[in-house]
Amino acid sequence: MTFQVYDTTLRDGAQREGLSYSVVDKLAVARLLDEFGVGFVEGGWPGAVPKDTEFFRRARTELDLRHAVLVAFGATRRAGVAVTDDAQVRGLLDAGTPAIALVAKADLRHVERALRTSAGENLAMIHDTVAHLVAEGRRVFVDGEHFFDGYRHDPAYTSAVVETALAAGAERFVLCDTNGGMLPSRVTAAIVDLTDRIGVAPELLGMHAQNDTACAVANTIAAVEAGVRHVQGTANGYGERPGNADIFAVVANLQLKLGMPVLPEGCLAQMVRVSHAIAEIANIAPDTHQAYAGAAAFAHKAGLHASAIKVDPLLYNHVDPVVVGNDMRILITEMAGRASVELKSRELGLDLAGHPDTLSKVTSRVKELEAGGWSFEAADASFELLVRSELPDAAPVRPFALESYRVLVEHREDGSVVSEATVKIRVRGERVIATAEGNGPVNALDEALRVGLARHYPELRDFELADYKVRILEGSHGTGAVTRVLVETADGAGRDWTTVGVHPNVVEASWHALVDALTYGLDRARVGPAGG
Amino acid sequence: MTFQVYDTTLRDGAQREGLSYSVVDKLAVARLLDEFGVGFVEGGWPGAVPKDTEFFRRARTELDLRHAVLVAFGATRRAGVAVTDDAQVRGLLDAGTPAIALVAKADLRHVERALRTSAGENLAMIHDTVAHLVAEGRRVFVDGEHFFDGYRHDPAYTSAVVETALAAGAERFVLCDTNGGMLPSRVTAAIVDLTDRIGVAPELLGMHAQNDTACAVANTIAAVEAGVRHVQGTANGYGERPGNADIFAVVANLQLKLGMPVLPEGCLAQMVRVSHAIAEIANIAPDTHQAYAGAAAFAHKAGLHASAIKVDPLLYNHVDPVVVGNDMRILITEMAGRASVELKSRELGLDLAGHPDTLSKVTSRVKELEAGGWSFEAADASFELLVRSELPDAAPVRPFALESYRVLVEHREDGSVVSEATVKIRVRGERVIATAEGNGPVNALDEALRVGLARHYPELRDFELADYKVRILEGSHGTGAVTRVLVETADGAGRDWTTVGVHPNVVEASWHALVDALTYGLDRARVGPAGG
Repeated sequence: MTFQVYDTTLRDGAQREGLSYSVVDKLAVARLLDEFGVGFVEGGWPGAVPKDTEFFRRARTELDLRHAVLVAFGATRRAGVAVTDDAQVRGLLDAGTPAIALVAKADLRHVERALRTSAGENLAMIHDTVAHLVAEGRRVFVDGEHFFDGYRHDPAYTSAVVETALAAGAERFVLCDTNGGMLPSRVTAAIVDLTDRIGVAPELLGMHAQNDTACAVANTIAAVEAGVRHVQGTANGYGERPGNADIFAVVANLQLKLGMPVLPEGCLAQMVRVSHAIAEIANIAPDTHQAYAGAAAFAHKAGLHASAIKVDPLLYNHVDPVVVGNDMRILITEMAGRASVELKSRELGLDLAGHPDTLSKVTSRVKELEAGGWSFEAADASFELLVRSELPDAAPVRPFALESYRVLVEHREDGSVVSEATVKIRVRGERVIATAEGNGPVNALDEALRVGLARHYPELRDFELADYKVRILEGSHGTGAVTRVLVETADGAGRDWTTVGVHPNVVEASWHALVDALTYGLDRARVGPAGG
Repeated sequence: MTFQVYDTTLRDGAQREGLSYSVVDKLAVARLLDEFGVGFVEGGWPGAVPKDTEFFRRARTELDLRHAVLVAFGATRRAGVAVTDDAQVRGLLDAGTPAIALVAKADLRHVERALRTSAGENLAMIHDTVAHLVAEGRRVFVDGEHFFDGYRHDPAYTSAVVETALAAGAERFVLCDTNGGMLPSRVTAAIVDLTDRIGVAPELLGMHAQNDTACAVANTIAAVEAGVRHVQGTANGYGERPGNADIFAVVANLQLKLGMPVLPEGCLAQMVRVSHAIAEIANIAPDTHQAYAGAAAFAHKAGLHASAIKVDPLLYNHVDPVVVGNDMRILITEMAGRASVELKSRELGLDLAGHPDTLSKVTSRVKELEAGGWSFEAADASFELLVRSELPDAAPVRPFALESYRVLVEHREDGSVVSEATVKIRVRGERVIATAEGNGPVNALDEALRVGLARHYPELRDFELADYKVRILEGSHGTGAVTRVLVETADGAGRDWTTVGVHPNVVEASWHALVDALTYGLDRARVGPAGG
């Protein structure tokens, strides 16, 4: 039976406080999870959440998943209502996914006090809904909400829930530690007790852990050690309260510690990239200290260690960081910094191996900028411009020179809000003054710049601002806060690139990112992409 | 035998990237750990780290610990040197602490490759140093570095290390998962194997876990379940790479899940306060999603849950948050229904239970705003203003009326970037025009507004913008993107509140959040907090 890695970043993980994915965000996250190789992406609750209905609708034509099966999540039919009359269930089918996950009450107390129905009716709700969806040709997963607490309270009833769901045709019954209060040894004991009691094969079970005791990952591993072959989690452990099991750590532990190849070949190495990209989309600062994926996960500091690492890296790393796409950083030397810059440049088609002086210069510049808040991790185009400006034979052409700009935002007496920007630039020897309005200060500035460049660079018309992200970064060492802006530009021909700008003033930070975006796009249109 | 809770925040935990405690910081952290009731505070490495030598010197007269024993950490004597001739060992004694912890190589490969000495000499180093310190009247703990990896590689040698240390008089031999690669079941197996092999009582062992597999807390619990009665960890899990076991989660699990009273009476409830205070001293943003201690640890979102919480809070919390000094927060979300809004209002001291029409109106308004990008989840103050503006007898007083404002950002020819704002408002019948500069458009606008209000509301001087977050949200149903701004304001008297603003224009969105912030703060200063 195939091991199932089931991701619920877009459904359960979306419950994290302050987190709100747009439909476009959800599509992007789904693609990233697919690149990481998960077997299932639970996309949301169609019908109940308008954005989710929209997501499933667009997914049908816009999502082309290579590894993952898309899953719609919802609930069993309402008490006392025929399943064919239940609109919510209808909504799950309308989402058109190959698989559907149903949350079912597995704790008798919840059945009685929260649902306020009978033990028997709850079983009927589960049976009817599962059977109906199976008859409609869907794969069905059943999430036993509060399974562990319910099993401890009334093992006979909770067992009946498990049996009912599986007998009705559910592919897996997922044991959910909804309140997150479990410890690994208790997960093991519960699973052993359950499988003994009703003779169910553990491979028909799944595990869904919450992190309230800081044991979600460990609880998931314990379940697998007890024979479970379906694990649920979210990217970076995002979720309600202390979150869900971090799917990255779970998978890394399964593959690297338990030797179980649960992802398709080559996928594990995508972890760090996917982890960071999802954090960016969620607009959550990546956790530098996250296991496996954090920037500091393999960063050694103690003098005690660094000397030994030089002698034998495997003496101090529990795994080789490369296998998860991470890097070992030595904080007291510059060695790893140069290696990263060189690798990255090569990735972009620029070979610095034969240019040690340039490599040193670029590395210093990158470190200096990063100390000031710049981050090139998600801004390849800005990074490429930086490297190329140090290579005389590959230096990018600057399309214009800035003389000055001004941006005005007015909230007028009549309540209207207007933004207007004027730029004064020199383009190919000519002085140009251009003014435009926009729906905000940055949009106005972008528009004004395009107006000013339009005559000399008509190809700009196809460039479109695809995404714009702002983050305020704490100052350090006595400096004030700075704003970091990431701009994603698309050229209408399927290519897009990201640039960055950092400055205490959000408009100036945006200006830098916008200028890099246009410079990169125009330069590329002129010479073709670097490296062919 | 007493259970030992041993904290190494100030030694191992200080290895976290970017973290640097001053001597004063260390004294403050030690006091806080003592208030939490830990049995031991490992304060640092005297002699090796100058700041630590100073810390132990000042601790003798300035630290008055009620529960904790201060411990100096260091290493066994050097190879080939008599222990009485070893300056580093002398330094440990000079620190004058009742207890000393020694790190010893427990992995033969490290003895040979890192220390570059013989197996026998390493055992002699351990024996000599422990015996010497015991003879000098100190309690001695021995940390078996790389214990688990070493035991797997050469169980006979690693066992000999354990026996040598205990025979020489060590109080505990601490099993260190230095590389952090262990899983709970493997910790259990190793401890059972070791105790079988050499007949050592597990209560003579200790556990020190690192978090590289995201299982540090679980590994520590597994060790206790195997009979170990000494656990090590750090505040908030701070430490090198993905950190150490979070001492707060470990202790909470032991006390609340395993029913082991490991802290003195009344200490567990100090957790949240101590956790946050140490984060402040370390200058690390508290992890809102930290198990037990995080601000969001007990914050419920899903509409699914909120309706049940009303019915029975213990159905959804794995423990009562009050026992760790935390609180249950209901988040308002897209999934919110009347139940969530009612619960949240009650939390803020406003009882809508008897006002069903108002409740409906507020719920509709919240849903409507949220569909447009507003989020009240993290903006309690804006939510309260919204609710109260629907209650005639509790409506907030608006401090001024806006006529117009304008904001200008200029990038001048000389390269300087300036921001200036002018507001025209009516304050208590008087028309006021005020202008100010700032480091960005929003800062300039905030300054101008304060200048305009200063004469009528001098108390504004104490209000400070503590945090500012910006998010660009995708448009939906054909509308363009909107910007959501969250502003956190502090009044300098220990209170802070968060407000929100949403608009396509970042300046206008910020304006709304700023006005709500001032309105809320001034209104509260006038009438006192809602609900008393």
